Amino acid sequence: MKNILIIGCGLIGSSILRAIYTKKIAGNIYVYEKSKKNISIIKKLKVECKIVKKLNNTFVNFDLIIICTPMSQYPSIIKKISKFILNKTIITDVGSTKESIFKKVGKLINNNKNWISSHPIAGSEVSGAEYGNKNLFKNKWCVLIKEKNVNKKNLSKLKTFWKKLGSKVIMMNSKQHDIIFSMTSHLPHLIAYNLVKTATDFEKEKKYNLIKYSAGGLRDFSRIAASNEIMWRDVFFTNQKNIISAINLFIKNLNSFKRDINQKNNSRIIKKLINSKKVRKKIISLKQDINKPDFGRS
Amino acid sequence: MKNILIIGCGLIGSSILRAIYTKKIAGNIYVYEKSKKNISIIKKLKVECKIVKKLNNTFVNFDLIIICTPMSQYPSIIKKISKFILNKTIITDVGSTKESIFKKVGKLINNNKNWISSHPIAGSEVSGAEYGNKNLFKNKWCVLIKEKNVNKKNLSKLKTFWKKLGSKVIMMNSKQHDIIFSMTSHLPHLIAYNLVKTATDFEKEKKYNLIKYSAGGLRDFSRIAASNEIMWRDVFFTNQKNIISAINLFIKNLNSFKRDINQKNNSRIIKKLINSKKVRKKIISLKQDINKPDFGRS
Repeated sequence: MKNILIIGCGLIGSSILRAIYTKKIAGNIYVYEKSKKNISIIKKLKVECKIVKKLNNTFVNFDLIIICTPMSQYPSIIKKISKFILNKTIITDVGSTKESIFKKVGKLINNNKNWISSHPIAGSEVSGAEYGNKNLFKNKWCVLIKEKNVNKKNLSKLKTFWKKLGSKVIMMNSKQHDIIFSMTSHLPHLIAYNLVKTATDFEKEKKYNLIKYSAGGLRDFSRIAASNEIMWRDVFFTNQKNIISAINLFIKNLNSFKRDINQKNNSRIIKKLINSKKVRKKIISLKQDINKPDFGRS
Repeated sequence: MKNILIIGCGLIGSSILRAIYTKKIAGNIYVYEKSKKNISIIKKLKVECKIVKKLNNTFVNFDLIIICTPMSQYPSIIKKISKFILNKTIITDVGSTKESIFKKVGKLINNNKNWISSHPIAGSEVSGAEYGNKNLFKNKWCVLIKEKNVNKKNLSKLKTFWKKLGSKVIMMNSKQHDIIFSMTSHLPHLIAYNLVKTATDFEKEKKYNLIKYSAGGLRDFSRIAASNEIMWRDVFFTNQKNIISAINLFIKNLNSFKRDINQKNNSRIIKKLINSKKVRKKIISLKQDINKPDFGRS
């Protein structure tokens, strides 16, 4: 590709920038980023790219535009970039929810003709360009959203792009995506936030010093509960319906667990606990986590 | 100490064995273990110890007996060892709940005179002697249970013992202990088990392949949801009341979170998410977790 524009250059955007430059995927890389801190980090990198100061005045023929900002910023960005989108331009993003965004963006931008959404499963609890890494996408899934009227040539180009970045590409429609990730990512994050909230409420109420004993389990949850608040608010708001269904199923199961404990129902509890262990083994065999006790951290 | 007996030699017991031997804390170390696999691993270690075949026929003057079995085995063990307990013998354990055990053991053994319970916060999702490690307790908390009529001389001896193993010792009563750990350890484990259960139920219902996308969050929970089922059933059953209170508080907060998402209540959500981040910082500053993104695993 000749010209690629990255809009938003935090953890994901700056990792894409590093990877595109290292793997020589683009003739020219353009970057638009509002944060002065991120800009100053990008300038210090040994990466050739052009910093775009104002999105409105960008008269370049872009082959690919990648939006890497929180999803709540998409409407204002789309409004600005719609002025210089060509027929050939592929527009993608890296957001964590898809269905409501697809509907919204469709209205704003050429009836979704240029738009094919991406979701690299490569996030972390840290954010900002300083944590970017050219290998962030290596061997990670990247979901591409394939809706009925997708432009197949563009889809194929975008697939090649992510594969060059090291991703394993999988396609699904936005509805499927939002259902799957409501369970594997959105609910876990929400549960982690809720557990930390519950522990701090409890600490206040009981006047005990709890947090210093968090190595017994709580600390695992606190990692993903330290994720970026703007990004995660946007996820919760844009995948509302699926997340609420997931919460309801979780509460139903939790009430059943509570009954089992109340009744000291040995066989039901043991069955649940043994099944969990099998899932962990599957996760490791699918290379979704490392096979070291305690995440290898101790 | 001259003679120490370790009953149960899995992850914790065999780590104590390794540490006692390396640090030359005892004249003689005796080990009682039912699992043939653990026995064969212990025999291969470069650790001098005597394997006790039957607990009933053990006529040694023990200074310290450490019970490292699942808590459901305590009554039968206490029955056996009560035959050879001397006035000087300190009996401790490493179990994760304390109040109900204290009451039960008190009836069985010399009215709790020899009994001072310990809880080293050093568990993991793995179990068995093969994962034992002489440094498992280094810089980790070890809670000693100090009830009203505790034998202070014995408490001081036991404190010295754990400090020699590298632990930071803290004292509290069994009631306080069970309340604190219901929140920092028991609830997180239960929530992790429940999340994995919810994800597998959902996978069956929707017929989607979910687990392969677990790197988006679920995998973190699956680690502690792979913990030993016997140990955790015992925890849930012996700290029933506190765990049920913790579940109730958790569900109350989760319903409030659900309302916030339903109403798209920006300020309430953002406040919760920002507060979580502060707790993570506190956990790291208290050295309860490592300061590396993604637990340093990627």
